[in-house]
Amino acid sequence: MALNRDLVGKTSAPLTFEYTWKDVVLYALGVGCKADELDYLFEGRGPKVLPTFAAVPCFTSLMDVLMRVEAPLEKVLHGEQRIVLHRPIPPQGQLKSVSTIRGIYDKGKGALVAVDCSTVDEKGTPLFDNSFSIFVRGEGGFGGDRGPEQEKIEAPTSAPTFEVTEAVPAEQALLYRLSGDLNPLHADPTFAKMAGFERPILHGLCTYGYAGRAIVRGACGGDASTLRSYGARFSGAVVPGDTITTRGWKLADGRYLVNVVNQANQPVLSHGLVELG
Amino acid sequence: MALNRDLVGKTSAPLTFEYTWKDVVLYALGVGCKADELDYLFEGRGPKVLPTFAAVPCFTSLMDVLMRVEAPLEKVLHGEQRIVLHRPIPPQGQLKSVSTIRGIYDKGKGALVAVDCSTVDEKGTPLFDNSFSIFVRGEGGFGGDRGPEQEKIEAPTSAPTFEVTEAVPAEQALLYRLSGDLNPLHADPTFAKMAGFERPILHGLCTYGYAGRAIVRGACGGDASTLRSYGARFSGAVVPGDTITTRGWKLADGRYLVNVVNQANQPVLSHGLVELG
Repeated sequence: MALNRDLVGKTSAPLTFEYTWKDVVLYALGVGCKADELDYLFEGRGPKVLPTFAAVPCFTSLMDVLMRVEAPLEKVLHGEQRIVLHRPIPPQGQLKSVSTIRGIYDKGKGALVAVDCSTVDEKGTPLFDNSFSIFVRGEGGFGGDRGPEQEKIEAPTSAPTFEVTEAVPAEQALLYRLSGDLNPLHADPTFAKMAGFERPILHGLCTYGYAGRAIVRGACGGDASTLRSYGARFSGAVVPGDTITTRGWKLADGRYLVNVVNQANQPVLSHGLVELG
Repeated sequence: MALNRDLVGKTSAPLTFEYTWKDVVLYALGVGCKADELDYLFEGRGPKVLPTFAAVPCFTSLMDVLMRVEAPLEKVLHGEQRIVLHRPIPPQGQLKSVSTIRGIYDKGKGALVAVDCSTVDEKGTPLFDNSFSIFVRGEGGFGGDRGPEQEKIEAPTSAPTFEVTEAVPAEQALLYRLSGDLNPLHADPTFAKMAGFERPILHGLCTYGYAGRAIVRGACGGDASTLRSYGARFSGAVVPGDTITTRGWKLADGRYLVNVVNQANQPVLSHGLVELG
């Protein structure tokens, strides 16, 4: 069944996300925060909020859009993600998000649904924007535009500016999903098989969060408020139990190229670009 | 300042605890559930509820009692815990708990506050009872009764009926506390030092939950509904990062004696007694 392309260009009604420091800490643990990153894990220190938490409050808005374009859940894979941060994310609040479908592109084997989502605080002050690219398998071939090509920068052959290797515990997806993305692909062995995977895979946004922690430490000198934007492509599945390595290279223009590979050196997050400021 | 002993024998007003499957899964992860214990971690399978979750819904009732007897938080340590289960715990609901102070005993170096807490479901059906023994350091010596002695059974010298060894991740207390016990002793290095510990320690009830999982597997054949009661004494602190071993011996009367030691073979949970039925 084809996706409903009538919604392209339309903006959804605002959806509210109310959260407390517990949600912030749950997310931080969900993306692998360690005990020595206590600023993100203890309310007595804020807690500080990881910049990639930006992908959480708008999630219901994204799901609402995917439901309305009639994308079947078992065919959906996260393709790309970009966050743009306007100011530090507060440790609690009531945020509002609206989503606009930028396009539904024809990638042949599937359709790419590009959704832009803007989030504001109680006073309407812009906090952050998300761009989600959602790949819907089997829904391509409708004769549509392939969509714009993303900027691609080759990884320098020099040694990376920073490199972080972490083991992803076997329970990580079961913990991460408590932050909102309850797709059974990440929990249910039967559903995962039906979707073509040997076993449940990690959420792309969980890997993205691991990479974000490495970026805050390696590129931002520990000060998350200097991160302006971070975009990346989900190029391979991580299975809980894998070990992932995030490598960042500082480019001549001050940006960082950031890639993540698994223990077999297969790319899992590629085309990663980080802007500071 | 002495504890307020006027409240002994009094029963508190009921306090409500509302929860969903997410709280059940968060608790299960908090007490170390592994990916292969998916029944407790995935809502598509219930989720099943660990019997030691019984200690969670009544926690606010216990805290309310401790506040009213004026026990200073930084002097409070969990001494003993016993749960009695009347029926399987539902994966969501709105429960009500009342607490009665059974006694405030004089243990010399401290006072022991014994609290009995009963929890019922929406229809008033009894689900489970908790007995908390809370040790308040420095509040003894008021010339009071030492309280009843607990049944003590020596560990048999034979090989245990079951034995489970698990590493407790360094982040475990930070995860467990999201289930309700926010005492900074388990998160804040400064507070932990003030309370006389080198660093934050694991919640006694977290260790208790680890032991409970071992009991369900080793004594209940995986069927948690056969557990009637489980009592134990917190005899030593676990520090996140420790490795703990739970050993159970089946006794001639069908009960199990259950002890937990750390990697240095120091007891952390002793006097453990399990009844099935």
